[in-house]
Amino acid sequence: MGRMKQSKLFTKTRKDAPKDEVSKNAQLLLRAGYVHKEMAGVYSYLPLGFKVLKNIEAIVRDEMNMLGGQEGILSSLQDPDIWKKTGRWDGEADEVWLKTKLANDSELGLAFSHEEPWARVLSEHVSSYRDLPLYTYHFAPKFRNELRAKSGLMRGREFLMKDLYSFTKNEDDLNTFYEDVRVAYENIFRRVGIGNNTYFTYSSGGIFSKWSHEFQCVSDAGEDTIYIDTEKRIAINKEIYTDEVIQETGLEKDRLIEAKAIEVGNIFKLGTKYAEALGLTYKDEEGNENPVVMGSYGIGIGRLLGTVAEILSDEKGIVWPESIAPFKYHLVELSGGDEAVKERADALYQQMVERGIEVLYDDRDAHAGEKFADSDLMGIPYRIVVGKNSVGGVLEVVRRSTGETLSMSYDEVLGS
Amino acid sequence: MGRMKQSKLFTKTRKDAPKDEVSKNAQLLLRAGYVHKEMAGVYSYLPLGFKVLKNIEAIVRDEMNMLGGQEGILSSLQDPDIWKKTGRWDGEADEVWLKTKLANDSELGLAFSHEEPWARVLSEHVSSYRDLPLYTYHFAPKFRNELRAKSGLMRGREFLMKDLYSFTKNEDDLNTFYEDVRVAYENIFRRVGIGNNTYFTYSSGGIFSKWSHEFQCVSDAGEDTIYIDTEKRIAINKEIYTDEVIQETGLEKDRLIEAKAIEVGNIFKLGTKYAEALGLTYKDEEGNENPVVMGSYGIGIGRLLGTVAEILSDEKGIVWPESIAPFKYHLVELSGGDEAVKERADALYQQMVERGIEVLYDDRDAHAGEKFADSDLMGIPYRIVVGKNSVGGVLEVVRRSTGETLSMSYDEVLGS
Repeated sequence: MGRMKQSKLFTKTRKDAPKDEVSKNAQLLLRAGYVHKEMAGVYSYLPLGFKVLKNIEAIVRDEMNMLGGQEGILSSLQDPDIWKKTGRWDGEADEVWLKTKLANDSELGLAFSHEEPWARVLSEHVSSYRDLPLYTYHFAPKFRNELRAKSGLMRGREFLMKDLYSFTKNEDDLNTFYEDVRVAYENIFRRVGIGNNTYFTYSSGGIFSKWSHEFQCVSDAGEDTIYIDTEKRIAINKEIYTDEVIQETGLEKDRLIEAKAIEVGNIFKLGTKYAEALGLTYKDEEGNENPVVMGSYGIGIGRLLGTVAEILSDEKGIVWPESIAPFKYHLVELSGGDEAVKERADALYQQMVERGIEVLYDDRDAHAGEKFADSDLMGIPYRIVVGKNSVGGVLEVVRRSTGETLSMSYDEVLGS
Repeated sequence: MGRMKQSKLFTKTRKDAPKDEVSKNAQLLLRAGYVHKEMAGVYSYLPLGFKVLKNIEAIVRDEMNMLGGQEGILSSLQDPDIWKKTGRWDGEADEVWLKTKLANDSELGLAFSHEEPWARVLSEHVSSYRDLPLYTYHFAPKFRNELRAKSGLMRGREFLMKDLYSFTKNEDDLNTFYEDVRVAYENIFRRVGIGNNTYFTYSSGGIFSKWSHEFQCVSDAGEDTIYIDTEKRIAINKEIYTDEVIQETGLEKDRLIEAKAIEVGNIFKLGTKYAEALGLTYKDEEGNENPVVMGSYGIGIGRLLGTVAEILSDEKGIVWPESIAPFKYHLVELSGGDEAVKERADALYQQMVERGIEVLYDDRDAHAGEKFADSDLMGIPYRIVVGKNSVGGVLEVVRRSTGETLSMSYDEVLGS
């Protein structure tokens, strides 16, 4: 579906977002018809939003495959047994779970993460050092019992997440892969258009490692506070912002700038905790059994979509980067009832379709003002207008991000 | 990921399926490493199974797009309000729901179907007869509180479903589209390899229409019983198998053959029930408000995968049709330590990779018997063996489905 006539698209834009929607990203996405709000913290994707989601997914998948990741998809329904083994079924963890019950009264969980199930799967397939290292990932829904859910797509009770897991023989191999993932994540955030705003950020670690790391995208809508060295492109999360940490990370206090930010990714060294609890071991070269060393690497795909909408937008609407836009071109016909103009626009659309160019064709019987307002709100990167004043041979193409008008030949557009 | 070295694939085959697994499809898929069983009725997809799932999804998506379907994805968490309006939250419906609770104690459901949420979404976008007809679909997980779950991938507590919904002005438009879907479904079952075994089957209807229709695939593992006219390729479900129905469907009792069958798809005319309950109306040419007429059309993607594994398999393992196989070729190297042979196999793999040919390369250091048994179990359509006796210029290619050996030139393989 690289092309579509807007008269056939079932979603409509609307002037106002629902009154209970306070977050800018959700307001814009709702008004432009990209998403539907099912309830607080739960959004459905309508055709345009679905296309953006899939485009982001494709970029993330590409980077995961280049890391050697093997894709699958694990279930949402979770067996309590494996979570009890790691101590994440009851107690503190209970606050985050959404749980459900079968007819026979046995309790199940809805996955809020997937360390335990992946470790169990691997325990059935890994036995020797020859099997390692290996990396698995999936795009799977996550469910969390959030108390507050007021940040639109940025904090959901249900959301799509890409989670990657590494399984290595030892800490050295983990550290090597961890650095590879850091680079892949930087590629992803650059490719979806927020690379300049996103910082590698020290955050609280766990039993195994001193720190974990987040990728924090600067935005007033963020729920986190970070301290940034803009030159080194490194930051520290407020949670661990102490003189000691500043020193240990090699940063200087008076060069750090405070900012609100959205956590768009995180990477953790997990050590052997999960492997030990779930019997995930391998035999080394000497024949000894060792627990596998794990790492986990997450990116919320819906949150990333929301972050781009939040950051790359202006008073008129969304400004999608070309890499993830639902279409590259928005072809707008302004015939005002003039059949010759309509035919010219129809013909151009047909030519674009034949060449496989991504285009949304606004063929609706509507006023110019309405069409332009919708186009700005929807945020497709290049707008081509075919109207009464369009001169043959040259197309006026407006770039959404800057508003500048480019004069392009048919060949330039059709060759793209 | 159109190619892979088997030494890198994290899944291993196994001789025996878990003892509690009684269904043939799940036994085969578990033994071949395609899926992991999380619990009764809940399966996760590992890399090979994930590839088959995505191949089936691509075929279904292609047919949905040709029908004019617009793809999105609605949430799993469900707002009780819309289901209360149609009477499907409590009472009888309660048996099928898996429900959960938020921290604030409010109850939510996990989608067992999506008529209500799609009708609500559409009620925000449809207002005029000019907006209709329109068709929406998604691939979304479904959750059901199944009492029994012993048929492997064929009856799940969590499963991926493609559901398509039609929204039309009147019954005539519904009937026209219903016939189009019937053809699309026949295409799908043919394309995934079970067309010959699958019958258009009359089944019980509802308030609105006398009958609904199922697509039933003949198999001893089926949970349904149908009566088939093999010539007309039409069947009647036992549930409604009466003299009256036989007569009304134009069939003849003594031509009908009883068989067990798996329901791989179903199509329903819903009428205006959901639209009326959820305020989904349109203004007609005369300015009158009318409820939208709906239809719903489902295919369980996981069940379809399980059905193919159940039906297209022999005593050695699975026999995937080329259209949905994880790879087209299984390249098996039998060097037995002979470096020259190994190099020849490596070179062929490299050439196949460069041409974008789908190939799994068994480069493992293992005995011929083990490699052949794994290959038969995994069921990739064409096996190419490179061993000591392989003569230069000619490749021996064994077709999994028939066991016949084809002599093919390198060019024939590389050109494919």
